[in-house]
Amino acid sequence: MADLNKEESTRSLPRRVKVMEVGPRDGFQMEKTFIATERKIEIIDALSRTGIPAFQTTSFVHPRAIPQLRDAEEVMAGIKRAPGVKYCALVPNAVGARRAAASGVDEIHVVLSASNTHNRANVNMTVEESLKGFEAVMEIAREARIPVKGGIATAFGCPYEGDVPEEQVLRIIERMLAMGMDKISLGDSTGMANPAQILRLVDKIKSRWPGLPVLLHLHNTRGMGLANALAGLEAGVTEFDAAIGGLGGCPYAPGATGNISTEDLVHMFHEMGIETGIDLDALIRCARRMQGIIGRTLDGQVMKAGKRSDLYPIPEALK
Amino acid sequence: MADLNKEESTRSLPRRVKVMEVGPRDGFQMEKTFIATERKIEIIDALSRTGIPAFQTTSFVHPRAIPQLRDAEEVMAGIKRAPGVKYCALVPNAVGARRAAASGVDEIHVVLSASNTHNRANVNMTVEESLKGFEAVMEIAREARIPVKGGIATAFGCPYEGDVPEEQVLRIIERMLAMGMDKISLGDSTGMANPAQILRLVDKIKSRWPGLPVLLHLHNTRGMGLANALAGLEAGVTEFDAAIGGLGGCPYAPGATGNISTEDLVHMFHEMGIETGIDLDALIRCARRMQGIIGRTLDGQVMKAGKRSDLYPIPEALK
Repeated sequence: MADLNKEESTRSLPRRVKVMEVGPRDGFQMEKTFIATERKIEIIDALSRTGIPAFQTTSFVHPRAIPQLRDAEEVMAGIKRAPGVKYCALVPNAVGARRAAASGVDEIHVVLSASNTHNRANVNMTVEESLKGFEAVMEIAREARIPVKGGIATAFGCPYEGDVPEEQVLRIIERMLAMGMDKISLGDSTGMANPAQILRLVDKIKSRWPGLPVLLHLHNTRGMGLANALAGLEAGVTEFDAAIGGLGGCPYAPGATGNISTEDLVHMFHEMGIETGIDLDALIRCARRMQGIIGRTLDGQVMKAGKRSDLYPIPEALK
Repeated sequence: MADLNKEESTRSLPRRVKVMEVGPRDGFQMEKTFIATERKIEIIDALSRTGIPAFQTTSFVHPRAIPQLRDAEEVMAGIKRAPGVKYCALVPNAVGARRAAASGVDEIHVVLSASNTHNRANVNMTVEESLKGFEAVMEIAREARIPVKGGIATAFGCPYEGDVPEEQVLRIIERMLAMGMDKISLGDSTGMANPAQILRLVDKIKSRWPGLPVLLHLHNTRGMGLANALAGLEAGVTEFDAAIGGLGGCPYAPGATGNISTEDLVHMFHEMGIETGIDLDALIRCARRMQGIIGRTLDGQVMKAGKRSDLYPIPEALK
């Protein structure tokens, strides 16, 4: 709006963003019951056809640690890979990285927590031990020529420690980049981030490493998920994780909502004129199918309320 | 952050905002069963003690039109008015305005829809007829020396007509200001607004009428409620409606979420360092009590997940 003198002080938003579907990993691992491998493959294939550009397809973790994802190889082998779509996977260590490479994943994701207490509670290692473990993952990935994305959980706060110093996040990024990771993802799996904080931390990272792709992994635990995504957009973030239907949850808050919902996020982006390349109607159908597979109502709003453009029939008396 | 060169291009956010509780009106009127007058009074009084600065306490509408609010006079007479708190009410016409004035409301709210179809469906009048009706309300309010706030529903989109021209909203504001209303509230009761649109429309209004208080009445129908509130903050809005627990709903989308939740909104503001003067813990207790009164789980997230600052006990093994 050229006529608005205030407009010049507004950050310009990206015109196009990428949304990575993480429901098959972050969502399914939180479910109490095992989702049948065929159902996992069915929903991933259906999502692939919506134009979703990338998946966190599964996690090559030890089957005893997360039995819900014990079928990682079968899922990777069973899906119909859509052209141009990236099928990535999370790995906890070198063993997982070897399995992921053998399964032909397009990108390997590693993750640690920025706070020691959360990292120890989660993977029984200090942050330093996790970083050392990543060296072995990097070696396998280099040999297999698979890019690696470094994820930092509790980047905006730790459910045990509270505030996480920004400097700690920056130090971890430095180490990850030195190892050869080429993308960094900031995680907020317990929904502790707020929009001002997102803007401040992403700004800091982008000013220290201009051009570094910074991704956001947001949850809606305290209702701020899409507000945080908006702040991310304003900070220049163009890649976001999300889970179909808002799958997932928070181990620290039973009953709380999970990941930001893919279809709600895409709906907001489209309404704002930001392209995703995704067919929203097909995505909403996937969210409804996901409810059927999982056997309960999920938190996604747009599949209940309809898109903003789904108008209500004008009453006969008013025609 | 003075060290960030990008920071200067960011809009500065207000340091303090006002949150008006509208649950007793917008929430209770959407409930299928009548909430007992004593329960209404109980929750309003409890909310008054949290530091909530203002209420849309009830609506002086014909009891046949909205039987859920047929006890408007009794509610206004029964509540214990907290010092400094404003007890406002919605009125549909001159009859309602007289009742409201007799009940000693601190502010009268009127509302029309920016789109003719929605206004006709809602109050069986054209926009022009509604505006004419407000003249009589203004006369009563002037005599009783009660300020009047003009609300514009479907300011960001109409469930029947779709897009609502911004010029139509500006024309209505012009008429409302000419009548002597001193505050304007933009309503999005069907959750059709998006953050880019909020920024654009509020900017336009503020550039045409600098200094005019523009309020936002947001719903979370499509999950964008708090993102829209954030956009409002960035546009300089400092007064927001919200409903405890996320009460309310959308007649066009049964099962969809209602108003933005007061406690989730206040939680986000506080996390961002924006003051509200409200005791969040007391507010969360009210949200839980509201669930008890209404007999079902409400959509507010923070009452389920806890505040961001509610930490989880460190596991014994990690101490």
